[in-house]
Amino acid sequence: MSLIVAKFGGTSVATPERIKRVADRLIAMKEAGNQVVAVVSAMGSTTDQLVAMANAVNENPPTRELDRLLGTGEQVSMTLLSMAIEAKGHKSMSFSGRQAGILTDGTHAKAKIVSIDSKRILDALDDGFIPVVAGFQGIDKNGDMTTLGRGGSDTTAVAVAWGINADVCEIYSDVDGVYTADPRVCPRARKLSSISYDDMLELSGAGTGVLNMRAVEFARKFNVVIHSRSAFSDAEGTYVKEALPMMEEAVITGIAYDVSQIKLTVRGVPDMEGVAAKMFGMLAEQGVNVNMIIQNVSEDGHTDISFTCPSADTDKARETVEQITSEVKARDWTLSDDIAMVSLVGTGMKSAPGVAAKAFATMAANDINILAISTSPIRLSIVVNRSQSSAAVCALHNAFGLDSDSDFEETQLSAEEILAKMAKGR
Amino acid sequence: MSLIVAKFGGTSVATPERIKRVADRLIAMKEAGNQVVAVVSAMGSTTDQLVAMANAVNENPPTRELDRLLGTGEQVSMTLLSMAIEAKGHKSMSFSGRQAGILTDGTHAKAKIVSIDSKRILDALDDGFIPVVAGFQGIDKNGDMTTLGRGGSDTTAVAVAWGINADVCEIYSDVDGVYTADPRVCPRARKLSSISYDDMLELSGAGTGVLNMRAVEFARKFNVVIHSRSAFSDAEGTYVKEALPMMEEAVITGIAYDVSQIKLTVRGVPDMEGVAAKMFGMLAEQGVNVNMIIQNVSEDGHTDISFTCPSADTDKARETVEQITSEVKARDWTLSDDIAMVSLVGTGMKSAPGVAAKAFATMAANDINILAISTSPIRLSIVVNRSQSSAAVCALHNAFGLDSDSDFEETQLSAEEILAKMAKGR
Repeated sequence: MSLIVAKFGGTSVATPERIKRVADRLIAMKEAGNQVVAVVSAMGSTTDQLVAMANAVNENPPTRELDRLLGTGEQVSMTLLSMAIEAKGHKSMSFSGRQAGILTDGTHAKAKIVSIDSKRILDALDDGFIPVVAGFQGIDKNGDMTTLGRGGSDTTAVAVAWGINADVCEIYSDVDGVYTADPRVCPRARKLSSISYDDMLELSGAGTGVLNMRAVEFARKFNVVIHSRSAFSDAEGTYVKEALPMMEEAVITGIAYDVSQIKLTVRGVPDMEGVAAKMFGMLAEQGVNVNMIIQNVSEDGHTDISFTCPSADTDKARETVEQITSEVKARDWTLSDDIAMVSLVGTGMKSAPGVAAKAFATMAANDINILAISTSPIRLSIVVNRSQSSAAVCALHNAFGLDSDSDFEETQLSAEEILAKMAKGR
Repeated sequence: MSLIVAKFGGTSVATPERIKRVADRLIAMKEAGNQVVAVVSAMGSTTDQLVAMANAVNENPPTRELDRLLGTGEQVSMTLLSMAIEAKGHKSMSFSGRQAGILTDGTHAKAKIVSIDSKRILDALDDGFIPVVAGFQGIDKNGDMTTLGRGGSDTTAVAVAWGINADVCEIYSDVDGVYTADPRVCPRARKLSSISYDDMLELSGAGTGVLNMRAVEFARKFNVVIHSRSAFSDAEGTYVKEALPMMEEAVITGIAYDVSQIKLTVRGVPDMEGVAAKMFGMLAEQGVNVNMIIQNVSEDGHTDISFTCPSADTDKARETVEQITSEVKARDWTLSDDIAMVSLVGTGMKSAPGVAAKAFATMAANDINILAISTSPIRLSIVVNRSQSSAAVCALHNAFGLDSDSDFEETQLSAEEILAKMAKGR
């Protein structure tokens, strides 16, 4: 018997039929002897439709009103799910963010949870109800609704799980867990039975969309076990939890890729003190989310500075770079939007030397051009041409022994051995 | 400069375009120097769509969940209207029932307002905002949403007007005021410039659908002036307010008709003490809303008892009457659903004898068969065949001098004179 929080995304509750199936699933958990609290997103594309309505009356809707509007989406799905459970003979009650005691800092559109008072949920559980909580929303100290930002329902689920001290926070979606790489790109990718918070965070940050990054951060902070699994099967998914000290751990846990970035380069920048600081200061002011920064070696008092940022920031980035080029008297600037960032992630990387060398050798062996590099203690990211991103993911997946049927010996080659094999082959 | 509450129904806010027009209207009021608070219903057929979704997951949805679901409708329209106002350069804030301080008794689906705390609305007005309040909803002492029943947005508007001590509560709809009769039935009907609360209540109770009856009751109790007017023109509508003592007042204010009733008759009922009490006790127990009761003169120890009730109660009424017939050993029963109730309403009736006689004579002169009669001190209702209801409304409208171009002399005829004219004509 466990205390379970089960979060269902918009696809899982997109129609009355699917809502009934979610009800069946929750009832099955309860009848198996568990206590269960559901957290739901808005039905299907409801949020997009509400945004479209808002834009039809105001191109730049005030965030207080927009939050209140979007919050209705989850209130529709939560009540329908409660009704569906009641129709099947079990007691259920729905709870808005306010009713679930989720207090936020009042930052509309991207509120942070300040506290959670789970009394009503716990009382409902004690009374035999299946509580259903609206994801994505909370209330500020003025009594106004605030939303947690896109993907915020995962955060709600983790917060509720923490608030009621649940054994596990199950996050149901249309993928059945976390893979060593995107199976659509790399058919030999394997589902991980578990992954550490740190690795999951790096994978999410590097473009793996299975779980919301803030939710994982929240879970790590409060030590909430997440179980990422499929809404359409009973198969076990992937547990995200504190890493156990193991005898040996894999150097690389998984490979992420991200095709949502663009790369800008300002060329012929006078190599003076403070120029870089000025550039990135201006970009920050304009709200451009700079991801990687690459500064090439200075040549005759001039240097090239590149950076990547989300393609959603393209217009702001272009404008700012134009202004910078003129202000710092640089030669010119370029933008390329056909790039991809491929990242190797693994806590084991910290104690395994040679990961970068091996990754570069693998790229070279596969004729993949490296455009930029950035690293963290447990991540190595390589920017490549978008057309080569799938090849890069698959080559690295194989080289680091992640393939489901990988030849152990082959994948244990060092960078030198790879380069040697490569030279021999030519 | 006035303090105005302006309520807009679902038709007025059915599309983003219409919401923008409502915003224009509110801004015009404000720019004319008034302070204005808007109250809105859900957009167009939203409420029906939400009910359909609820029924798709539960044929008999729990009222707590249904209230929460339906309440989202007004929260969508209120936020969109606030956004539309802001887009036009005026400050606006939306308020749910809870945020508007509307506390109810917790009876889901038909909650009664217990108190209203208008502080936030008054503060917003002081700060130059146009507050927009969600109609139809409040919150109970547990913090759960409750709805006020269909048409409850009118009640919200009156309650808000009372709470902020507004000069007038304007109720905008697709009709431009209260008429002496439904203009679709009686083309010579006149718009009333004002009407007393009592007359308005009787008209609403007798089937005139312009204003919600509870809203009028609330307004009478707290002396809130209602102005019923068109959402699509600037013309003055009808003021509903305390009647002023006048030198002379019209005997009849208006004529209502109601085609939503059915009539049941139990025939050959043994004329014993307690039989009627038993019948209507059983009907009440089954939740049948009995409207009129007609008991014919007893014949050889047996009598016929008829009653009318809303056609929505047909199934329950039929079942109960079947049971009654067998229990009280009556001969049989009949049901007719092609009836209409036509009502003459007027506070002046109290001091004007002969209204009933004149009405009956008018029916006779027009060959309209009277099936049943019921009266209150200021209302006379006549049940007729549905096919004759329009004729009855028009004949009475003419006979009681309400026609827009009525021949005064003709309409001042007494019952005797009408009958005499009729005899002469034959």
